[in-house]
Amino acid sequence: MKLQLYELAGADGAVRFSPHCWKARMALAHKGLTAERIPCRFSDKDKLAFSGQDLVPVLVADDTTITDSWNIALFLEEAAPDAPSLFGGEAAQSLARFVNAYANTLIRTSLFPLIAMDIYDSIAEADRDDYREKREAFLGAPLEEVAAKRSQAVHKFRELLDPVRTLLTTQAYLSGDQPRYADYCLFGSFMWARCISNFALLDPDDSINDWRERLLDAFDGMARQAPRSTVALA
Amino acid sequence: MKLQLYELAGADGAVRFSPHCWKARMALAHKGLTAERIPCRFSDKDKLAFSGQDLVPVLVADDTTITDSWNIALFLEEAAPDAPSLFGGEAAQSLARFVNAYANTLIRTSLFPLIAMDIYDSIAEADRDDYREKREAFLGAPLEEVAAKRSQAVHKFRELLDPVRTLLTTQAYLSGDQPRYADYCLFGSFMWARCISNFALLDPDDSINDWRERLLDAFDGMARQAPRSTVALA
Repeated sequence: MKLQLYELAGADGAVRFSPHCWKARMALAHKGLTAERIPCRFSDKDKLAFSGQDLVPVLVADDTTITDSWNIALFLEEAAPDAPSLFGGEAAQSLARFVNAYANTLIRTSLFPLIAMDIYDSIAEADRDDYREKREAFLGAPLEEVAAKRSQAVHKFRELLDPVRTLLTTQAYLSGDQPRYADYCLFGSFMWARCISNFALLDPDDSINDWRERLLDAFDGMARQAPRSTVALA
Repeated sequence: MKLQLYELAGADGAVRFSPHCWKARMALAHKGLTAERIPCRFSDKDKLAFSGQDLVPVLVADDTTITDSWNIALFLEEAAPDAPSLFGGEAAQSLARFVNAYANTLIRTSLFPLIAMDIYDSIAEADRDDYREKREAFLGAPLEEVAAKRSQAVHKFRELLDPVRTLLTTQAYLSGDQPRYADYCLFGSFMWARCISNFALLDPDDSINDWRERLLDAFDGMARQAPRSTVALA
Protein backbone atom coordinates (compact mmCIF):
# COMPACT_ATOMS: atom_id res chain seq x y z
CA MET A 1 0.00 0.00 0.00
CA LYS A 2 1.50 3.30 -1.13
CA LEU A 3 0.77 6.01 1.44
CA GLN A 4 0.99 9.78 1.27
CA LEU A 5 0.20 12.03 4.22
CA TYR A 6 -0.40 15.75 3.71
CA GLU A 7 0.66 17.66 6.80
CA LEU A 8 0.53 21.29 7.86
CA ALA A 9 3.99 22.88 7.67
CA GLY A 10 5.62 25.95 9.18
CA ALA A 11 8.03 28.43 7.57
CA ASP A 12 10.59 25.64 7.81
CA GLY A 13 8.78 22.97 5.81
CA ALA A 14 10.22 20.29 8.07
CA VAL A 15 8.24 21.64 11.05
CA ARG A 16 4.89 19.83 11.05
CA PHE A 17 2.85 21.11 13.97
CA SER A 18 -0.84 20.30 13.38
CA PRO A 19 -2.30 18.29 16.29
CA HIS A 20 -4.53 16.37 13.92
CA CYS A 21 -1.62 15.48 11.64
CA TRP A 22 0.21 14.20 14.70
CA LYS A 23 -2.71 11.90 15.48
CA ALA A 24 -2.38 10.47 11.96
CA ARG A 25 1.41 10.15 12.24
CA MET A 26 1.22 8.29 15.52
CA ALA A 27 -1.53 6.06 14.13
CA LEU A 28 0.60 5.19 11.10
CA ALA A 29 3.57 4.38 13.35
CA HIS A 30 1.35 2.28 15.64
CA LYS A 31 0.43 0.23 12.58
CA GLY A 32 4.07 -0.01 11.51
CA LEU A 33 3.33 1.91 8.31
CA THR A 34 5.40 4.57 6.59
CA ALA A 35 3.95 7.34 4.47
CA GLU A 36 5.52 9.89 2.18
CA ARG A 37 4.94 13.07 4.17
CA ILE A 38 3.99 16.07 2.05
CA PRO A 39 4.25 19.56 3.57
CA CYS A 40 1.38 21.94 3.08
CA ARG A 41 1.46 25.52 4.36
CA PHE A 42 -1.70 27.48 5.12
CA SER A 43 -1.30 29.22 1.75
CA ASP A 44 -0.63 25.91 -0.04
CA LYS A 45 -4.15 24.62 0.40
CA ASP A 46 -4.49 24.27 -3.39
CA LYS A 47 -2.48 21.09 -2.96
CA LEU A 48 -5.49 19.60 -1.16
CA ALA A 49 -8.07 20.48 -3.83
CA PHE A 50 -8.04 16.87 -5.08
CA SER A 51 -9.50 15.83 -1.71
CA GLY A 52 -12.58 18.03 -2.13
CA GLN A 53 -11.86 20.05 1.01
CA ASP A 54 -9.01 22.12 2.47
CA LEU A 55 -8.13 20.61 5.83
CA VAL A 56 -5.11 18.52 6.81
CA PRO A 57 -4.39 15.73 7.40
CA VAL A 58 -5.25 14.03 4.14
CA LEU A 59 -4.11 10.45 3.62
CA VAL A 60 -3.85 8.97 0.15
CA ALA A 61 -3.63 5.16 0.18
CA ASP A 62 -3.12 3.88 -3.33
CA ASP A 63 -6.27 5.18 -5.04
CA THR A 64 -8.20 6.04 -1.88
CA THR A 65 -8.28 9.55 -0.37
CA ILE A 66 -9.20 9.88 3.30
CA THR A 67 -9.77 13.21 5.01
CA ASP A 68 -10.13 13.92 8.75
CA SER A 69 -7.83 12.35 11.31
CA TRP A 70 -10.61 10.25 12.86
CA ASN A 71 -11.48 8.74 9.48
CA ILE A 72 -7.80 8.10 8.86
CA ALA A 73 -7.57 6.13 12.11
CA LEU A 74 -10.63 4.06 11.19
CA PHE A 75 -9.19 3.43 7.73
CA LEU A 76 -5.83 2.29 9.10
CA GLU A 77 -7.49 0.03 11.66
CA GLU A 78 -9.32 -1.75 8.83
CA ALA A 79 -6.50 -1.63 6.28
CA ALA A 80 -3.92 -3.15 8.65
CA PRO A 81 -5.95 -5.59 10.76
CA ASP A 82 -2.94 -7.76 11.62
CA ALA A 83 -0.93 -4.88 13.09
CA PRO A 84 -1.61 -3.85 16.73
CA SER A 85 -5.10 -2.45 17.12
CA LEU A 86 -5.45 1.33 17.41
CA PHE A 87 -8.50 0.93 19.60
CA GLY A 88 -8.73 -2.52 21.19
CA GLY A 89 -12.31 -3.26 20.22
CA GLU A 90 -15.56 -1.57 19.34
CA ALA A 91 -16.47 -0.20 22.78
CA ALA A 92 -12.96 1.18 23.19
CA GLN A 93 -13.24 2.84 19.76
CA SER A 94 -16.37 4.66 20.93
CA LEU A 95 -14.62 5.85 24.07
CA ALA A 96 -11.49 6.85 22.13
CA ARG A 97 -13.80 9.18 20.26
CA PHE A 98 -14.73 10.73 23.60
CA VAL A 99 -11.06 11.36 24.34
CA ASN A 100 -10.70 12.84 20.85
CA ALA A 101 -13.66 15.15 21.56
CA TYR A 102 -12.07 16.11 24.89
CA ALA A 103 -8.81 17.01 23.12
CA ASN A 104 -10.64 18.88 20.36
CA THR A 105 -12.80 20.95 22.69
CA LEU A 106 -11.58 21.64 26.23
CA ILE A 107 -7.90 21.03 25.60
CA ARG A 108 -7.64 22.79 22.25
CA THR A 109 -9.62 25.80 23.43
CA SER A 110 -7.48 26.29 26.52
CA LEU A 111 -4.17 25.46 24.82
CA PHE A 112 -4.51 27.59 21.71
CA PRO A 113 -4.17 30.97 23.48
CA LEU A 114 -0.92 29.75 25.06
CA ILE A 115 0.74 29.13 21.69
CA ALA A 116 -1.17 31.32 19.22
CA MET A 117 1.63 33.89 19.01
CA ASP A 118 4.30 31.20 18.70
CA ILE A 119 2.41 29.65 15.80
CA TYR A 120 2.35 33.05 14.10
CA ASP A 121 6.09 33.38 14.56
CA SER A 122 6.71 29.86 13.23
CA ILE A 123 4.67 29.96 10.02
CA ALA A 124 5.67 31.34 6.64
CA GLU A 125 5.53 35.09 6.05
CA ALA A 126 2.94 34.54 3.34
CA ASP A 127 0.62 32.85 5.88
CA ARG A 128 0.85 35.40 8.65
CA ASP A 129 -1.63 38.16 7.78
CA ASP A 130 -4.47 35.75 7.17
CA TYR A 131 -3.61 33.76 10.29
CA ARG A 132 -3.50 36.89 12.44
CA GLU A 133 -6.81 38.20 11.14
CA LYS A 134 -8.73 34.95 11.67
CA ARG A 135 -7.19 33.99 15.02
CA GLU A 136 -7.52 37.46 16.52
CA ALA A 137 -11.20 37.45 15.55
CA PHE A 138 -11.52 34.06 17.28
CA LEU A 139 -9.55 35.11 20.36
CA GLY A 140 -11.12 38.55 20.58
CA ALA A 141 -7.73 40.21 21.16
CA PRO A 142 -4.38 40.86 19.45
CA LEU A 143 -2.00 37.89 19.49
CA GLU A 144 0.54 39.89 21.49
CA GLU A 145 -2.02 40.63 24.20
CA VAL A 146 -3.07 36.99 24.41
CA ALA A 147 0.58 35.93 24.68
CA ALA A 148 1.22 38.43 27.48
CA LYS A 149 -1.48 36.77 29.58
CA ARG A 150 -0.42 33.18 29.12
CA SER A 151 1.22 32.77 32.51
CA GLN A 152 -2.26 33.22 33.98
CA ALA A 153 -4.15 31.41 31.21
CA VAL A 154 -2.05 28.26 31.63
CA HIS A 155 -3.78 27.51 34.93
CA LYS A 156 -7.07 26.81 33.17
CA PHE A 157 -5.33 24.47 30.71
CA ARG A 158 -3.70 22.59 33.58
CA GLU A 159 -6.98 22.33 35.48
CA LEU A 160 -8.69 20.86 32.42
CA LEU A 161 -6.10 18.08 32.48
CA ASP A 162 -7.29 16.91 35.91
CA PRO A 163 -9.04 13.81 34.48
CA VAL A 164 -5.77 12.74 32.85
CA ARG A 165 -3.78 13.37 36.01
CA THR A 166 -6.26 11.36 38.05
CA LEU A 167 -6.25 8.51 35.57
CA LEU A 168 -2.48 8.29 35.43
CA THR A 169 -2.34 7.53 39.16
CA THR A 170 -3.66 4.04 38.32
CA GLN A 171 -2.50 3.28 34.78
CA ALA A 172 0.40 4.16 32.47
CA TYR A 173 -1.66 5.31 29.49
CA LEU A 174 -5.20 6.50 28.84
CA SER A 175 -5.73 3.23 26.96
CA GLY A 176 -4.32 1.05 29.75
CA ASP A 177 -0.87 -0.48 29.99
CA GLN A 178 -0.02 0.41 26.41
CA PRO A 179 -0.73 3.48 24.29
CA ARG A 180 -3.42 3.42 21.65
CA TYR A 181 -5.26 5.99 19.57
CA ALA A 182 -6.93 7.69 22.56
CA ASP A 183 -3.47 8.56 23.86
CA TYR A 184 -2.42 9.92 20.46
CA CYS A 185 -5.50 12.16 20.37
CA LEU A 186 -4.30 13.97 23.46
CA PHE A 187 -0.61 13.68 22.63
CA GLY A 188 -1.29 15.48 19.33
CA SER A 189 -2.13 18.59 21.35
CA PHE A 190 1.20 18.42 23.14
CA MET A 191 3.06 17.97 19.85
CA TRP A 192 1.21 20.96 18.42
CA ALA A 193 2.83 23.02 21.16
CA ARG A 194 6.21 21.29 21.20
CA CYS A 195 6.90 21.83 17.51
CA ILE A 196 6.47 25.60 17.59
CA SER A 197 6.69 26.80 21.21
CA ASN A 198 9.02 26.61 24.20
CA PHE A 199 6.35 27.65 26.72
CA ALA A 200 6.14 25.26 29.70
CA LEU A 201 2.64 23.78 29.50
CA LEU A 202 3.07 21.61 32.60
CA ASP A 203 4.59 22.07 36.02
CA PRO A 204 7.87 20.12 36.25
CA ASP A 205 6.38 17.76 38.86
CA ASP A 206 3.15 17.10 36.94
CA SER A 207 2.68 13.36 36.45
CA ILE A 208 1.50 14.03 32.89
CA ASN A 209 5.13 14.78 32.03
CA ASP A 210 5.99 11.10 32.43
CA TRP A 211 3.22 10.03 30.08
CA ARG A 212 4.32 12.64 27.53
CA GLU A 213 7.95 11.55 27.79
CA ARG A 214 7.01 7.92 27.16
CA LEU A 215 5.13 8.92 24.01
CA LEU A 216 8.02 11.10 22.86
CA ASP A 217 10.14 7.94 23.16
CA ALA A 218 7.66 5.70 21.32
CA PHE A 219 8.50 4.37 17.86
CA ASP A 220 12.24 4.95 18.33
CA GLY A 221 11.76 8.53 19.48
CA MET A 222 9.84 9.59 16.39
CA ALA A 223 8.06 12.49 18.07
CA ARG A 224 11.09 13.56 20.12
CA GLN A 225 13.19 13.84 16.97
CA ALA A 226 10.60 15.79 15.03
CA PRO A 227 11.93 19.17 13.84
CA ARG A 228 10.94 22.19 15.91
CA SER A 229 10.82 25.82 14.81
CA THR A 230 13.45 28.36 15.84
CA VAL A 231 10.82 29.81 18.19
CA ALA A 232 10.49 26.44 19.91
CA LEU A 233 14.26 26.06 20.18
CA ALA A 234 14.89 29.62 21.40
CA MET B 1 -25.42 -14.36 45.20
CA LYS B 2 -26.97 -12.30 47.99
CA LEU B 3 -26.27 -8.60 47.43
CA GLN B 4 -26.54 -5.61 49.74
CA LEU B 5 -25.78 -2.06 48.60
CA TYR B 6 -25.23 0.71 51.15
CA GLU B 7 -26.34 4.02 49.69
CA LEU B 8 -26.25 7.62 50.90
CA ALA B 9 -29.74 8.77 51.93
CA GLY B 10 -31.43 12.13 52.45
CA ALA B 11 -33.84 13.22 55.19
CA ASP B 12 -36.37 11.04 53.40
CA GLY B 13 -34.54 7.72 53.53
CA ALA B 14 -35.94 6.80 50.12
CA VAL B 15 -33.99 9.63 48.46
CA ARG B 16 -30.62 8.19 47.43
CA PHE B 17 -28.60 10.92 45.77
CA SER B 18 -24.90 9.97 45.80
CA PRO B 19 -23.44 10.01 42.27
CA HIS B 20 -21.17 7.10 43.13
CA CYS B 21 -24.05 5.04 44.49
CA TRP B 22 -25.89 5.70 41.22
CA LYS B 23 -22.95 4.30 39.29
CA ALA B 24 -23.23 1.12 41.37
CA ARG B 25 -27.01 0.95 40.94
CA MET B 26 -26.83 1.31 37.18
CA ALA B 27 -24.04 -1.27 37.07
CA LEU B 28 -26.15 -3.75 39.04
CA ALA B 29 -29.13 -3.17 36.72
CA HIS B 30 -26.88 -3.57 33.66
CA LYS B 31 -25.92 -6.97 34.99
CA GLY B 32 -29.55 -7.84 35.72
CA LEU B 33 -28.82 -8.06 39.45
CA THR B 34 -30.92 -6.91 42.37
CA ALA B 35 -29.50 -5.81 45.70
CA GLU B 36 -31.07 -5.05 49.03
CA ARG B 37 -30.56 -1.29 49.22
CA ILE B 38 -29.62 -0.04 52.66
CA PRO B 39 -29.93 3.70 53.41
CA CYS B 40 -27.08 5.41 55.18
CA ARG B 41 -27.24 9.08 56.17
CA PHE B 42 -24.10 11.15 56.68
CA SER B 43 -24.50 10.65 60.44
CA ASP B 44 -25.12 6.91 60.03
CA LYS B 45 -21.58 6.13 58.95
CA ASP B 46 -21.23 3.71 61.85
CA LYS B 47 -23.20 1.32 59.68
CA LEU B 48 -20.18 1.14 57.36
CA ALA B 49 -17.60 0.37 60.07
CA PHE B 50 -17.57 -3.30 59.03
CA SER B 51 -16.09 -2.20 55.66
CA GLY B 52 -13.05 -0.60 57.26
CA GLN B 53 -13.83 2.85 55.85
CA ASP B 54 -16.70 5.33 55.84
CA LEU B 55 -17.59 6.01 52.19
CA VAL B 56 -20.58 4.81 50.22
CA PRO B 57 -21.28 2.85 48.12
CA VAL B 58 -20.39 -0.40 49.82
CA LEU B 59 -21.47 -3.65 48.21
CA VAL B 60 -21.71 -6.86 50.18
CA ALA B 61 -21.85 -9.95 47.99
CA ASP B 62 -22.33 -13.03 50.16
CA ASP B 63 -19.19 -12.90 52.30
CA THR B 64 -17.30 -10.35 50.21
CA THR B 65 -17.27 -6.63 50.97
CA ILE B 66 -16.38 -4.24 48.14
CA THR B 67 -15.84 -0.51 48.66
CA ASP B 68 -15.51 2.21 46.01
CA SER B 69 -17.82 2.36 42.98
CA TRP B 70 -15.01 1.55 40.53
CA ASN B 71 -14.10 -1.62 42.45
CA ILE B 72 -17.77 -2.55 42.58
CA ALA B 73 -18.00 -2.29 38.78
CA LEU B 74 -14.91 -4.49 38.37
CA PHE B 75 -16.32 -7.00 40.85
CA LEU B 76 -19.67 -7.21 39.06
CA GLU B 77 -18.00 -7.57 35.66
CA GLU B 78 -16.15 -10.62 36.98
CA ALA B 79 -18.95 -12.02 39.13
CA ALA B 80 -21.51 -11.95 36.31
CA PRO B 81 -19.48 -12.72 33.18
CA ASP B 82 -22.45 -14.04 31.22
CA ALA B 83 -24.51 -10.87 31.66
CA PRO B 84 -23.87 -7.94 29.26
CA SER B 85 -20.38 -6.51 29.77
CA LEU B 86 -20.08 -3.26 31.69
CA PHE B 87 -17.03 -2.29 29.67
CA GLY B 88 -16.74 -4.20 26.39
CA GLY B 89 -13.17 -5.32 26.76
CA GLU B 90 -9.93 -4.39 28.49
CA ALA B 91 -9.05 -1.30 26.44
CA ALA B 92 -12.59 0.03 26.89
CA GLN B 93 -12.31 -0.56 30.64
CA SER B 94 -9.20 1.63 30.75
CA LEU B 95 -10.98 4.39 28.84
CA ALA B 96 -14.12 4.06 30.98
CA ARG B 97 -11.83 4.93 33.86
CA PHE B 98 -10.93 8.12 32.01
CA VAL B 99 -14.62 9.01 31.75
CA ASN B 100 -14.97 8.24 35.45
CA ALA B 101 -12.07 10.57 36.19
CA TYR B 102 -13.67 13.25 34.01
CA ALA B 103 -16.94 12.92 35.96
CA ASN B 104 -15.13 12.90 39.30
CA THR B 105 -13.00 15.97 38.60
CA LEU B 106 -14.24 18.54 36.07
CA ILE B 107 -17.93 17.62 36.21
CA ARG B 108 -18.18 17.16 39.95
CA THR B 109 -16.25 20.34 40.72
CA SER B 110 -18.42 22.48 38.46
CA LEU B 111 -21.70 20.78 39.36
CA PHE B 112 -21.36 20.75 43.14
CA PRO B 113 -21.76 24.54 43.63
CA LEU B 114 -25.00 24.40 41.62
CA ILE B 115 -26.63 21.94 44.02
CA ALA B 116 -24.73 22.35 47.30
CA MET B 117 -27.58 24.33 48.94
CA ASP B 118 -30.20 21.88 47.64
CA ILE B 119 -28.28 18.98 49.14
CA TYR B 120 -28.24 20.81 52.48
CA ASP B 121 -32.01 21.29 52.27
CA SER B 122 -32.56 17.63 51.37
CA ILE B 123 -30.52 15.92 54.05
CA ALA B 124 -31.52 15.10 57.62
CA GLU B 125 -31.42 17.84 60.23
CA ALA B 126 -28.82 15.88 62.15
CA ASP B 127 -26.49 15.98 59.11
CA ARG B 128 -26.77 19.65 58.28
CA ASP B 129 -24.31 21.44 60.59
CA ASP B 130 -21.43 19.16 59.72
CA TYR B 131 -22.29 19.28 56.01
CA ARG B 132 -22.44 23.09 56.06
CA GLU B 133 -19.16 23.44 57.88
CA LYS B 134 -17.20 21.13 55.60
CA ARG B 135 -18.73 22.24 52.30
CA GLU B 136 -18.45 25.94 53.05
CA ALA B 137 -14.77 25.42 53.84
CA PHE B 138 -14.42 23.62 50.49
CA LEU B 139 -16.41 26.22 48.54
CA GLY B 140 -14.89 29.19 50.35
CA ALA B 141 -18.29 30.85 50.80
CA PRO B 142 -21.64 30.36 52.57
CA LEU B 143 -23.98 27.91 50.83
CA GLU B 144 -26.57 30.67 50.33
CA GLU B 145 -24.04 32.85 48.54
CA VAL B 146 -22.92 30.00 46.28
CA ALA B 147 -26.58 29.25 45.45
CA ALA B 148 -27.27 32.88 44.57
CA LYS B 149 -24.55 32.74 41.91
CA ARG B 150 -25.56 29.50 40.23
CA SER B 151 -27.21 31.11 37.21
CA GLN B 152 -23.75 32.35 36.27
CA ALA B 153 -21.83 29.32 37.51
CA VAL B 154 -23.89 26.95 35.37
CA HIS B 155 -22.16 28.23 32.23
CA LYS B 156 -18.86 26.69 33.31
CA PHE B 157 -20.55 23.35 33.98
CA ARG B 158 -22.17 23.41 30.55
CA GLU B 159 -18.89 24.32 28.85
CA LEU B 160 -17.15 21.40 30.52
CA LEU B 161 -19.71 19.11 28.89
CA ASP B 162 -18.51 20.11 25.40
CA PRO B 163 -16.72 16.78 24.81
CA VAL B 164 -19.96 14.94 25.53
CA ARG B 165 -21.98 17.23 23.29
CA THR B 166 -19.48 16.78 20.47
CA LEU B 167 -19.43 13.01 20.87
CA LEU B 168 -23.21 12.70 20.85
CA THR B 169 -23.36 14.19 17.36
CA THR B 170 -21.99 10.89 16.07
CA GLN B 171 -23.12 8.22 18.54
CA ALA B 172 -26.02 7.60 20.93
CA TYR B 173 -23.96 6.85 24.04
CA LEU B 174 -20.44 7.52 25.25
CA SER B 175 -19.86 3.77 24.95
CA GLY B 176 -21.26 3.55 21.40
CA ASP B 177 -24.70 2.39 20.31
CA GLN B 178 -25.55 1.06 23.75
CA PRO B 179 -24.86 2.39 27.24
CA ARG B 180 -22.14 0.86 29.39
CA TYR B 181 -20.34 1.80 32.57
CA ALA B 182 -18.70 4.93 31.10
CA ASP B 183 -22.18 6.33 30.51
CA TYR B 184 -23.21 5.50 34.07
CA CYS B 185 -20.17 7.33 35.45
CA LEU B 186 -21.40 10.57 33.93
CA PHE B 187 -25.09 9.80 34.43
CA GLY B 188 -24.43 9.41 38.16
CA SER B 189 -23.63 13.13 38.28
CA PHE B 190 -26.97 13.98 36.71
CA MET B 191 -28.80 11.70 39.15
CA TRP B 192 -26.98 13.37 42.03
CA ALA B 193 -28.65 16.61 40.96
CA ARG B 194 -32.01 15.17 39.91
CA CYS B 195 -32.68 13.49 43.27
CA ILE B 196 -32.31 16.63 45.36
CA SER B 197 -32.57 19.68 43.07
CA ASN B 198 -34.90 21.20 40.49
CA PHE B 199 -32.26 23.52 39.02
CA ALA B 200 -32.04 23.26 35.22
CA LEU B 201 -28.52 21.98 34.55
CA LEU B 202 -28.92 21.97 30.76
CA ASP B 203 -30.47 24.28 28.20
CA PRO B 204 -33.71 22.75 26.89
CA ASP B 205 -32.22 22.33 23.41
CA ASP B 206 -28.96 20.74 24.63
CA SER B 207 -28.44 17.39 22.90
CA ILE B 208 -27.26 15.92 26.20
CA ASN B 209 -30.90 15.99 27.34
CA ASP B 210 -31.72 13.18 24.88
CA TRP B 211 -28.91 11.02 26.23
CA ARG B 212 -30.02 11.68 29.80
CA GLU B 213 -33.65 10.89 28.96
CA ARG B 214 -32.65 7.57 27.42
CA LEU B 215 -30.78 6.62 30.58
CA LEU B 216 -33.70 7.71 32.75
CA ASP B 217 -35.78 5.27 30.69
CA ALA B 218 -33.25 2.40 30.91
CA PHE B 219 -34.05 -0.67 33.00
CA ASP B 220 -37.81 0.02 32.93
CA GLY B 221 -37.38 3.62 34.03
CA MET B 222 -35.47 2.74 37.18
CA ALA B 223 -33.74 6.12 37.47
CA ARG B 224 -36.78 8.12 36.38
CA GLN B 225 -38.87 6.54 39.13
CA ALA B 226 -36.29 7.07 41.85
CA PRO B 227 -37.67 9.14 44.75
CA ARG B 228 -36.72 12.82 44.78
CA SER B 229 -36.62 15.17 47.74
CA THR B 230 -39.30 17.80 48.35
CA VAL B 231 -36.70 20.38 47.25
CA ALA B 232 -36.33 18.61 43.89
CA LEU B 233 -40.10 18.39 43.44
CA ALA B 234 -40.80 22.00 44.48
